[in-house]
Amino acid sequence: MALFDTENEFIEWLRTRASRRNHGIKAGVGDDAAVLAFGPGQEVLLKSDMSIEGVHFTTGLHPPTSVGHRALARPLSDIAAMGGTPKFALVAISLSAHTTRSWLESFYDGLLALAVQSGVALVGGDTAVVSGAITIDVVVAGEVGPGTALLRSGARPGDAVYISGWPGASAMGLQLIVGRPHHPRGSLIRPRGKSTTAPVRAPLTTRHAIHAHLYPEPRLALGRYLLEHRLASAAMDISDGISTDLGRLAAASGVGAIIRQGCLPKPEIGRPDWTPLALHGGEDYELLFTVSPDKVPLVPRTFQGVPLNRIGEMTKSKRLRLVGSDGKERDLEPAGYDHFRKT
Amino acid sequence: MALFDTENEFIEWLRTRASRRNHGIKAGVGDDAAVLAFGPGQEVLLKSDMSIEGVHFTTGLHPPTSVGHRALARPLSDIAAMGGTPKFALVAISLSAHTTRSWLESFYDGLLALAVQSGVALVGGDTAVVSGAITIDVVVAGEVGPGTALLRSGARPGDAVYISGWPGASAMGLQLIVGRPHHPRGSLIRPRGKSTTAPVRAPLTTRHAIHAHLYPEPRLALGRYLLEHRLASAAMDISDGISTDLGRLAAASGVGAIIRQGCLPKPEIGRPDWTPLALHGGEDYELLFTVSPDKVPLVPRTFQGVPLNRIGEMTKSKRLRLVGSDGKERDLEPAGYDHFRKT
Repeated sequence: MALFDTENEFIEWLRTRASRRNHGIKAGVGDDAAVLAFGPGQEVLLKSDMSIEGVHFTTGLHPPTSVGHRALARPLSDIAAMGGTPKFALVAISLSAHTTRSWLESFYDGLLALAVQSGVALVGGDTAVVSGAITIDVVVAGEVGPGTALLRSGARPGDAVYISGWPGASAMGLQLIVGRPHHPRGSLIRPRGKSTTAPVRAPLTTRHAIHAHLYPEPRLALGRYLLEHRLASAAMDISDGISTDLGRLAAASGVGAIIRQGCLPKPEIGRPDWTPLALHGGEDYELLFTVSPDKVPLVPRTFQGVPLNRIGEMTKSKRLRLVGSDGKERDLEPAGYDHFRKT
Repeated sequence: MALFDTENEFIEWLRTRASRRNHGIKAGVGDDAAVLAFGPGQEVLLKSDMSIEGVHFTTGLHPPTSVGHRALARPLSDIAAMGGTPKFALVAISLSAHTTRSWLESFYDGLLALAVQSGVALVGGDTAVVSGAITIDVVVAGEVGPGTALLRSGARPGDAVYISGWPGASAMGLQLIVGRPHHPRGSLIRPRGKSTTAPVRAPLTTRHAIHAHLYPEPRLALGRYLLEHRLASAAMDISDGISTDLGRLAAASGVGAIIRQGCLPKPEIGRPDWTPLALHGGEDYELLFTVSPDKVPLVPRTFQGVPLNRIGEMTKSKRLRLVGSDGKERDLEPAGYDHFRKT
């Protein structure tokens, strides 16, 4: 018997198996993070994300500070997508037999630098040494006001679709890095104080693309801004590419969407292969959010230097459609990363 | 440069690096679970534990229901050791290329059966397919009244040392299983309703030892009992063996301990090699706790059918000592599992 055909099929199966009884669960399996009521007056957000050598990073291309930064950035991005404030992190790591103390220290350097910038305290975890690949699981617990968390399920037909930053930048950065292996001690781009997660203010350049890949910035301030100003009807972070993740948001909301290729932000450096990267490239950790028509005038063009681009609308028809640069409309097939798809 | 010499050395290094600022952290790196203040009136317990193929289980010996049960039992046991009530779980799992849907479903059968019995709801996680070993990280979030969590650091010289159940049973069970590989579909001992985690009431038998290994019962009710009756000055769960874990509790409390071999519970089936299993065998998930002399008369001999044995005392001298069956006293060397020790 084969494994599940797609990750979405597995998540659906798990959702039907996981307890649905009211344990104080406001959102569970299938949203960006779990939203949990512990006591009155506050809700706890909980998310775990794995980073696996050979899948999410390679020790030859990613400096250990980047591996640590990205391992924490993944769950932080989910907390950002819900408009929450991250508070605590747990780090479980299984090291390979070849891992050195120097690598482990630099890994924690990168992780803890982002933790400090994000106001997150490392409070525990688990460690093992195995013969296989390095596997990291980072859990972030955050908080959000009761009933206010931004969910994937609130989008309605007619809502505008927005994306922050430059989707595709991380995928382009990876392509650039593959041609430029880093110095063994990880000197390609190392975080320096606050500059680690400085937003990409200028149009996307080679350097910014590499930075976006190695040290992505979780959009925590943007998520809180959307929540506080009640701008977003739904939100999620883009980790597997717009074409895959927009499909998940649309499915959670029971609607469809149409995207205009011409509205996607373009890099300064001309690249003919940009559109596939923008639509299907993963690991951008930008926020995808929807806004009801009456609130569209309230959405700023940029937030803290990061562009917010309107790229399409949600539709009643439960399909994903793309208006190409030729003006023709076609189906938008999910082509982002799916951990269950056979390649 | 080599990795850290011991797991304790790594944890100490990490403790100095992790944020010490008051983020509402009541206990962090180095205790059984993190104790975190989110809102007033309640504290959140958070723990993650990895289960790795080839380290914590093998697919040839452990039925998938057992792998699922044990993966959740590990963090539940940490919550039990703090006297907390578990509420929610996240499951991150990286599957190998050979994992079948049938294995994955049975894994979740075992995990969810224990979750239901423990009042825990599965609320999310992460999944990936990799080429290496199966790696599972389970996170449990629980709750406890403010300032009441049982910590490792409260033991004082003169406090009695207690252990629940039969330490060594899991290690003996593993030895027995190695001689009896399970049926491919996992029919050796499968959980059936409530009997899955039924306490071992009778003196330890072969069958009980195998059950203790495959389906260990987190001592949640015992932990809450110790907390509610304020019986324990310190507590932790035994996952790496008494000789290793008692050393951690003693170090956290700044004291030492003396253990009497003759006070360790013995199995019914005579085995000459029992004492090393009882002292150094891991994965028992029994509770080790200390009781001040004035409260010793209040400790029951059994709790819900599980024996509570007094096995020694905490001492002012910061050493671990063992009184052997010959009446002679010697150093008790930690010989339990250490993930950083070279073997």
